[in-house]
Amino acid sequence: MDETRLDRRKFFKTAGLGAGATLATTALAAPAIAQAMPEVKWRVQSSFPKSLDTIYGGGVTIAETVAALTDGKFQIDLGEAGRFVPGPQALDAVQNDTVEACHTCSYYFVGKDPTFAIGTALPFGLNARMQNAWIIEGGGQKLLDDFYSNYNIVSFVAGNTGVQMGGWFRKEIKGIDDLKSVKMRIAGLGGMVMAKLGAVPQQIPGGDIYPALEKGTIDAAEWVGPYDDEKLGFYQVAPYYYYPGFWEGGPSIHLFVNKAKWEALPPAYQAALKAGAATANQTMLAKYDVKNNTAIRSLVGKGVKLRPFPRDVLEAAYGAAFDIYGEISAKNAKFKTIYEPWKKFRDESYQWFRVAEYTFDSFGFAQQAKGG
Amino acid sequence: MDETRLDRRKFFKTAGLGAGATLATTALAAPAIAQAMPEVKWRVQSSFPKSLDTIYGGGVTIAETVAALTDGKFQIDLGEAGRFVPGPQALDAVQNDTVEACHTCSYYFVGKDPTFAIGTALPFGLNARMQNAWIIEGGGQKLLDDFYSNYNIVSFVAGNTGVQMGGWFRKEIKGIDDLKSVKMRIAGLGGMVMAKLGAVPQQIPGGDIYPALEKGTIDAAEWVGPYDDEKLGFYQVAPYYYYPGFWEGGPSIHLFVNKAKWEALPPAYQAALKAGAATANQTMLAKYDVKNNTAIRSLVGKGVKLRPFPRDVLEAAYGAAFDIYGEISAKNAKFKTIYEPWKKFRDESYQWFRVAEYTFDSFGFAQQAKGG
Repeated sequence: MDETRLDRRKFFKTAGLGAGATLATTALAAPAIAQAMPEVKWRVQSSFPKSLDTIYGGGVTIAETVAALTDGKFQIDLGEAGRFVPGPQALDAVQNDTVEACHTCSYYFVGKDPTFAIGTALPFGLNARMQNAWIIEGGGQKLLDDFYSNYNIVSFVAGNTGVQMGGWFRKEIKGIDDLKSVKMRIAGLGGMVMAKLGAVPQQIPGGDIYPALEKGTIDAAEWVGPYDDEKLGFYQVAPYYYYPGFWEGGPSIHLFVNKAKWEALPPAYQAALKAGAATANQTMLAKYDVKNNTAIRSLVGKGVKLRPFPRDVLEAAYGAAFDIYGEISAKNAKFKTIYEPWKKFRDESYQWFRVAEYTFDSFGFAQQAKGG
Repeated sequence: MDETRLDRRKFFKTAGLGAGATLATTALAAPAIAQAMPEVKWRVQSSFPKSLDTIYGGGVTIAETVAALTDGKFQIDLGEAGRFVPGPQALDAVQNDTVEACHTCSYYFVGKDPTFAIGTALPFGLNARMQNAWIIEGGGQKLLDDFYSNYNIVSFVAGNTGVQMGGWFRKEIKGIDDLKSVKMRIAGLGGMVMAKLGAVPQQIPGGDIYPALEKGTIDAAEWVGPYDDEKLGFYQVAPYYYYPGFWEGGPSIHLFVNKAKWEALPPAYQAALKAGAATANQTMLAKYDVKNNTAIRSLVGKGVKLRPFPRDVLEAAYGAAFDIYGEISAKNAKFKTIYEPWKKFRDESYQWFRVAEYTFDSFGFAQQAKGG
């Protein structure tokens, strides 16, 4: 460090400008420091089993990042699904301060209010890039937190899977007529869309999907994408693997934090939790993009029949989805308050992404497919 | 906090398990704490002017995040382009510890070695999602850092602009013949590709582009994208705005850190710098995706003629790009060592993204364009 810089540092210390400089002058005052870095231990309920290492791993990333940032003084005890409270009670548990936070998908709680769907994904909504842009810089964070505050919650986007797959079907779907009476494991607004197309949505926990598909109790099931799906072995009992999962174009995973507990954190610990969530958001998507890439190749090697949804299915689903948003908006002011600016952002993003991003991908993919 | 949890905490304190718990037992020992959170001040040279608030802002995000995470004890003094050292010397300055770090684009230093291009972007390479996946989880970080270690540098991905635009042209380009002898401001490997197509690459600093375009000293210029380009007013002197900037599909901005200075940081400060870079990486792209969205609309409203590059231009450029990579690989083992696994990752990612991501975008964009 040269003299000039020592002088500058001395100047800042002397002048006491800014929070950093002020704190620096008290660097040897032990009580202030002990105050600044108290020992804090939180329980965080994940909505995911450890076996889904990519999505559960988002919680691990948060815990590890926060520990590293605070020299281990802010400890997060992450519980896999069901450890502290049963899965469906994760939101209540945060609201009531039974646990300080949960790492979950907002749309798991559409039973309380369909508005919970928007924070994760709406069918034919935002892709992962747009989802981050909307939440982080496009006004989404405030709209969502205004809604979540009804549940004593502040939210942090903390993971994304990318576009999911459209699921596993025992029989080929050649057109919309083939969806009639198909019993499909699919929840939330995606299920509402499928119902409008004649399918019969089923609610089945992850662990029960395989036997139900095997026995033919259900005809189809959506789960996540190649990496997670391969582990559950669905390809052995339902060979048709459809894409895209139009109901989840870029679903966010959230960290929901009890508002009072958040506000009680020292500023540096708040910053650590935010940085942990941002790191998880980035790392989870990168993991999926690497692992799905390997898994799709493995699945195709095992004889999986990869199929795009027929055009008439997608078109009918698209119409049904926006009909549903209209119906919910007419009855639910909270939904409408977020949906309308979301829809405007979505439409404008589609227009802009169609220019440079889409043309770059489109041309490159075509050339590479030709062997270039 | 209930009794069970107090017991658990007590257990960890008593047993002294793990770094966190060990530190916790010394929470009131002032010297250890003072040691753990020393006052550190770094100078970080940005390669960008403050007027480019989005890309320069990545450095601001790093500085603010690091300060928030360390209660202001780790201070980053961010200098806009030229403040500590002239632009082209930023890398040398980090290597020689004149400054501790710089926030820059790796490919600015292709004059030292063309291998520097890969960390930012190669023409027809990775989009922003793939770029993050490759660096963060796909093996790219290690490959890049092995190369950067020749310059005493460790790297952190710390920003992305998304696909850039193909630049401003005074005359319309209807086919590859119209590129002959076109004097275009474009640097690096993109310039080498353009040269193979018959154009004449020009190296001109950002501030000199406008007058050169206005006078006709040059015929075309690429810069970044709508938000940054609009501020410089190029639309007033070169009305044709081409896309995509195929030489920059998802360029990363890096934080280059002097290796010895990095290794001397306390672990919590290393974690803070990493978290700051991750936050900048996420925030910069989100900002571009929001601001470009507004700017493209504004530019079109001002009469800008938005045009895709003609297909024959893209095809010739694609062939030229991969010819160039072959030529460089034949002469440069460092380039080849990174390029070959990069190319495999790129090809496989193109195949996988073509399935779910591309189909989701493609169908949605088309429906929305039809007024859906």
